[in-house]
Amino acid sequence: MKEDIFSKSLDMHRKLRGKLDIRCRKDIENVRDLALVYTPGVAEPCRAIARDENELWNVTIKNNLVAVVTDGTAVLGLGDIGPAASMPVMEGKSCLFKRFAGIDSIPLAISTKDVNEFVNVVSKIAVSFGGINLEDISAPRCFEIESRLQQELDIPVFHDDQHGTAVIALAAYKNALRLTGRSLAGSRLVINGAGAAGSSIARYFLAAGVEDIIMCDVNGALCEGYPQGLNPAQVELSKVTNPEKKRGGLADVIKGADAFLGVSRPGLLTGDMVRSMAKEPVVFAMANPTPEIFPDEAFAAGAAVVATGRSDFPNQVNNCLGFPGIFRGALDVRARRINEEMKLAASEALASLVTDAELSKDYIIPSALDERVVPAVARAVAEAARRTGAARL
Amino acid sequence: MKEDIFSKSLDMHRKLRGKLDIRCRKDIENVRDLALVYTPGVAEPCRAIARDENELWNVTIKNNLVAVVTDGTAVLGLGDIGPAASMPVMEGKSCLFKRFAGIDSIPLAISTKDVNEFVNVVSKIAVSFGGINLEDISAPRCFEIESRLQQELDIPVFHDDQHGTAVIALAAYKNALRLTGRSLAGSRLVINGAGAAGSSIARYFLAAGVEDIIMCDVNGALCEGYPQGLNPAQVELSKVTNPEKKRGGLADVIKGADAFLGVSRPGLLTGDMVRSMAKEPVVFAMANPTPEIFPDEAFAAGAAVVATGRSDFPNQVNNCLGFPGIFRGALDVRARRINEEMKLAASEALASLVTDAELSKDYIIPSALDERVVPAVARAVAEAARRTGAARL
Repeated sequence: MKEDIFSKSLDMHRKLRGKLDIRCRKDIENVRDLALVYTPGVAEPCRAIARDENELWNVTIKNNLVAVVTDGTAVLGLGDIGPAASMPVMEGKSCLFKRFAGIDSIPLAISTKDVNEFVNVVSKIAVSFGGINLEDISAPRCFEIESRLQQELDIPVFHDDQHGTAVIALAAYKNALRLTGRSLAGSRLVINGAGAAGSSIARYFLAAGVEDIIMCDVNGALCEGYPQGLNPAQVELSKVTNPEKKRGGLADVIKGADAFLGVSRPGLLTGDMVRSMAKEPVVFAMANPTPEIFPDEAFAAGAAVVATGRSDFPNQVNNCLGFPGIFRGALDVRARRINEEMKLAASEALASLVTDAELSKDYIIPSALDERVVPAVARAVAEAARRTGAARL
Repeated sequence: MKEDIFSKSLDMHRKLRGKLDIRCRKDIENVRDLALVYTPGVAEPCRAIARDENELWNVTIKNNLVAVVTDGTAVLGLGDIGPAASMPVMEGKSCLFKRFAGIDSIPLAISTKDVNEFVNVVSKIAVSFGGINLEDISAPRCFEIESRLQQELDIPVFHDDQHGTAVIALAAYKNALRLTGRSLAGSRLVINGAGAAGSSIARYFLAAGVEDIIMCDVNGALCEGYPQGLNPAQVELSKVTNPEKKRGGLADVIKGADAFLGVSRPGLLTGDMVRSMAKEPVVFAMANPTPEIFPDEAFAAGAAVVATGRSDFPNQVNNCLGFPGIFRGALDVRARRINEEMKLAASEALASLVTDAELSKDYIIPSALDERVVPAVARAVAEAARRTGAARL
């Protein structure tokens, strides 16, 4: 089935020769239409913006336009395949922005690995956009790129690989805890994978109220001062995680944990490890496309609930549950940034769509195709933006 | 009527809030569609490009995607109103690309007036595009920007304000000479306005075989060594134009000329000047929106044929006659650049659409809405690209 999807997708891409269609929203059938859309009529909206730059939001696509920007250094699970090879993903992301949230977006692959240059290029092209979606940029560069761009620009800059996954994972985690009678503050969580996604999830879960998180990497558990060679983001994390300062590999630190969350590699979580966890453990095996453990194996080892990144199992932590509604809400109020409160509101809105009656081991998170998701998330995000002063409207 | 178009256009822009609609060419209705358009299926076209970067042309929108790029320094007749205020024009241009040639394009306003930085930004975002349309960039910066970008990139870089107008003006000029029994080599032409458009037209007309051109500016006729303070492009032009080294203002040098071509300011050509020209003179008064002389006044002074930039008079030198077919032809053969031969082929194709039987003072150039234009221009451009080695296909 996987082979099939890959070759079918390649066939489709060869046939379409580009997944996007960029068209004019006004029919041009006569010289008058031309004069309205282009010269001479177009001079008037230009003059309006020249007088007051805020008019850019009112007379151009800025109010609904997002740039999907990458340098191609961390594309899917394929790694640093470069800006050109990343384009099918960026076009696909633009397809999803329109399909799920009615947002227009433009894919942009930037041919540099230099952080300064990347920041400079994106800053210089940003004026006509209402938001910047960073995509598939390797850690730790992605942290600096995002924070510097957000400092420079007055529109949201959002690295979806970090925050999107974190927002949805928290929603699913809240409901998994609800299902198994646990609390955020009381849960002991092991996160396997300390790259962009894992680090961001850890920071976000801490902000949401999870108090006991151990981050694990190929070199073992992060612990203040250990292991050596951590990047600055990991050093910071090592100070605020692992409260009991446990040492060792995943198999050691997972003992007794309530929950596992993997954004790492296929097969890294064994049935024996699951059996060593607390009773009725929560397992989020989100490596793509092959999870850290398959659901049947996790359940056989005692897991109470399993989430993955895949659509062919229940409880898919699917990015489409996050970024469309988050950007929709941000654009609707012309937000200056996407802050922590807005993300937390998105997680809560997402979790709340699953009622107590519906909640089960096969349903802790709505489907990406559930039409209620984007409006609910957008509303919550817009409301939080207004409450926290991030909104212009 | 003008007032009306301006306020109607502003109303339309406020209502549309963006003229472009960026959508997915594949319907996404179920998880399988998602898997084809995005993960995991999209990994396969990514891998194909990673193996062979030429695949970018086959599996992404590159084969049909143009960037419409500006710095907002010379927008319409409004001048240096900045990148933000230029956006309605850039979006409009994207509308025209799609409407006339089925080309997808992306408007990009770049927030810098520094030539190096502009070139750097455009170079760094160019990989996913099949062509770069430069727009509304002031002279003489536009010359350096275009030539440096064309040196750096292996896709066409085309400053429409320079070459687009030149291509169409030459087509109209050829037919005006045909109508009045003159030849390119034998015609004496005065060009008023020595900015980007005027300089480019002069160079292009020389390349096409016009031998006697005088360039005029606010300071009078360009002549080797005169006036002082010319930019490098104008200095070059002063060496190859004005063969009789005439000095003086427009009123002096236009005496006896066969043709006037204005890309300057409203009202600069008087009836007396037209009367001082050769018999049955050709008058192209292309200042926008108000021409150097109105057609009725020019005819009253003896003009045999008049062209303007306006759609409400016959013989509109309309940019829509040029760039859509030129880029269509270039993209169809995946051209590396748009060279002189390709432009000359476009002019000839355009001129040839008017038959001897049809040719009249009211019809020397087809209408922008003539559906034959883009296919004819595209075919000629593609053929010339193949002939001159500029084509990949």
